Amino acid sequence: MSRVWNFSAGPAVLPLPVLEQIREELTDWQGAGMGVMEMSHRGKAFTGIIEAAEADLRSLLGVPGNYRVLFLQGGATQQFAQIPLNLLGTGGDGSADYIVTGSWSKKAFGEAARFGRVRCAASTEADRFTRLPTAAEYAFDPAAAYVHLCTNETIHGVEFPAEVTMATPAPLVADMSSHLLSRPFDVSRFGLIYGGAQKNVGPAGLTLVIVRDDLLGKAAAHIPSVMDYAVMAANGSMLNTPPTFAIYAAGLVFKWLQAQGGLAGIAGVNAQKAALLYACIDGSGGFYRNNIAADCRSRMNVPFTLSDPALDAAFLADSQAAGLIGLKGHKSFGGMRASIYNALPLDGVRVLVDFMNDFAKRHG
Amino acid sequence: MSRVWNFSAGPAVLPLPVLEQIREELTDWQGAGMGVMEMSHRGKAFTGIIEAAEADLRSLLGVPGNYRVLFLQGGATQQFAQIPLNLLGTGGDGSADYIVTGSWSKKAFGEAARFGRVRCAASTEADRFTRLPTAAEYAFDPAAAYVHLCTNETIHGVEFPAEVTMATPAPLVADMSSHLLSRPFDVSRFGLIYGGAQKNVGPAGLTLVIVRDDLLGKAAAHIPSVMDYAVMAANGSMLNTPPTFAIYAAGLVFKWLQAQGGLAGIAGVNAQKAALLYACIDGSGGFYRNNIAADCRSRMNVPFTLSDPALDAAFLADSQAAGLIGLKGHKSFGGMRASIYNALPLDGVRVLVDFMNDFAKRHG
Repeated sequence: MSRVWNFSAGPAVLPLPVLEQIREELTDWQGAGMGVMEMSHRGKAFTGIIEAAEADLRSLLGVPGNYRVLFLQGGATQQFAQIPLNLLGTGGDGSADYIVTGSWSKKAFGEAARFGRVRCAASTEADRFTRLPTAAEYAFDPAAAYVHLCTNETIHGVEFPAEVTMATPAPLVADMSSHLLSRPFDVSRFGLIYGGAQKNVGPAGLTLVIVRDDLLGKAAAHIPSVMDYAVMAANGSMLNTPPTFAIYAAGLVFKWLQAQGGLAGIAGVNAQKAALLYACIDGSGGFYRNNIAADCRSRMNVPFTLSDPALDAAFLADSQAAGLIGLKGHKSFGGMRASIYNALPLDGVRVLVDFMNDFAKRHG
Repeated sequence: MSRVWNFSAGPAVLPLPVLEQIREELTDWQGAGMGVMEMSHRGKAFTGIIEAAEADLRSLLGVPGNYRVLFLQGGATQQFAQIPLNLLGTGGDGSADYIVTGSWSKKAFGEAARFGRVRCAASTEADRFTRLPTAAEYAFDPAAAYVHLCTNETIHGVEFPAEVTMATPAPLVADMSSHLLSRPFDVSRFGLIYGGAQKNVGPAGLTLVIVRDDLLGKAAAHIPSVMDYAVMAANGSMLNTPPTFAIYAAGLVFKWLQAQGGLAGIAGVNAQKAALLYACIDGSGGFYRNNIAADCRSRMNVPFTLSDPALDAAFLADSQAAGLIGLKGHKSFGGMRASIYNALPLDGVRVLVDFMNDFAKRHG
């Protein structure tokens, strides 16, 4: 069978050239006589792989020299605990502000509350997470140790603009899981950036953390060693065996991104893809709906509903038959969702839009 | 280049047929039109993969029905913290006994001490970890919540016998990272078994935990949710996105083990391999030395020294030139170490032994 168009929210489609290179090197990486999965993480070959991955990531994102790049495990959900354990002070007695704009930032807020004092600095839940807070709605605690936000909500399809502009009294800590590397942004605006790899970066099981030096060394006394950013930074992400194969695959994705013109290049394609899909939804005369405020619609995750939910099953069956996979909405949200990450080509969105137009014509 | 003989301690050699199947399915898993790395962990295809992996692991090990199998992240090092956080009681006020027989159990002991009261129930450090404790040396606390041991010390090359026979007042918790699946053992003797995958199971980034039901639900109040065994068990290891590709690869290793005659079959080959290598060392007239007591020598990790350390560099260079890789001993131990895991074939040990005999002849 040929490849499907994979709109899964994550784990998600990977660039075909990356998969082909992995396949090529699977039993013998560049003449080493073994695959990357089989290599000692302390050996020369893997050291080269992880160093290149970090250098390429730094170059793609423009990571300043006073930030450390960590290759960790446990996903964003582990970070939801790890962040307060690292940043609320050695006694865990600091407090933090959380901006709640969808399921993921709400989960982060809930988990953090188990480890210390957290406040909600703004929430759009009353509007069913269909928009971002206005400048006037933010109420920050001047004493907060950090301000947490999720810059792209995978389930609700709300995305902060590339430039996060609100003034905050404390370092911004951002869950960027589902749009990291999809566009350029200014790393220096943040104290800490994190994300699970399984959307735009690589296979599930790898977590990226980019953290400013001055935020290291403040961990709670009783933090597991593997969760202490300072310990991991001091050990080059190798206090223990890192997820070597996932790091290798992510490194190939970074090279692929460079070949797409870097983040500026891929951001252009992503903007085109999103424009095409939202135009289809908005031009369907109400057959399809996305009710997110226009200026904060995600360019990565596009949730939409059919005006007649009785057609959902037919939409999913017909789209799958047409080779369009993973369009079912998140269980907490219903309807449909098309995740159009970096590795989902413009052609895939064209095929989806053609299918949607045809489906609407047949059933409208 | 052809494949090398890979004696790395981990990440380590994987069975070639497993790698070949991964390669075959890399861009299109069984007609799905996508690779396993790209699949939603909630979809039907991956659900089938993880369920088969669990069923096969249960069958290989004979896991009783009152044990849960968890597919986690973070490696054994994360477990060193996770175990006391789960088993020392909701107030964290219980205590635990640790048996110290090498670097890894010593590390587990040290990390656990950060989370509660732990005691050393026996240690062989005074004998430089060259043997296991005698029955008379164990001094258990009758009130201990659990007794921790490492059944195979990867660095020091000390292995508990298949039947752990000492009577303990509390459930045994065993780090089996480096010999899990290398031989049959009685799971019901243990309360909890864990191991990083990157030796005998699959790629780094996957951690197996097998835990008896009655040990669930005792976690400390302030444990990160992803570290709570009960939460993970209730969510089928999917509170968050699991390391899907590593689970798939481990599942293929389980199928491969079944084709080797299961654990009894592979244990036979492993015994042959170890016998061959120790015979070479012991028969070298002192040119090579392994100073572990004969009845507790590891069948997986065979550390040895050359009588003349000035020959170490030549030994490593010549062995590498002969396609024998990963023989350098752990930095904390020096000398050499041959890890002869399941996937390292008998032929590989024959080639190593021939090389060692020849090297000794040339330099003896």
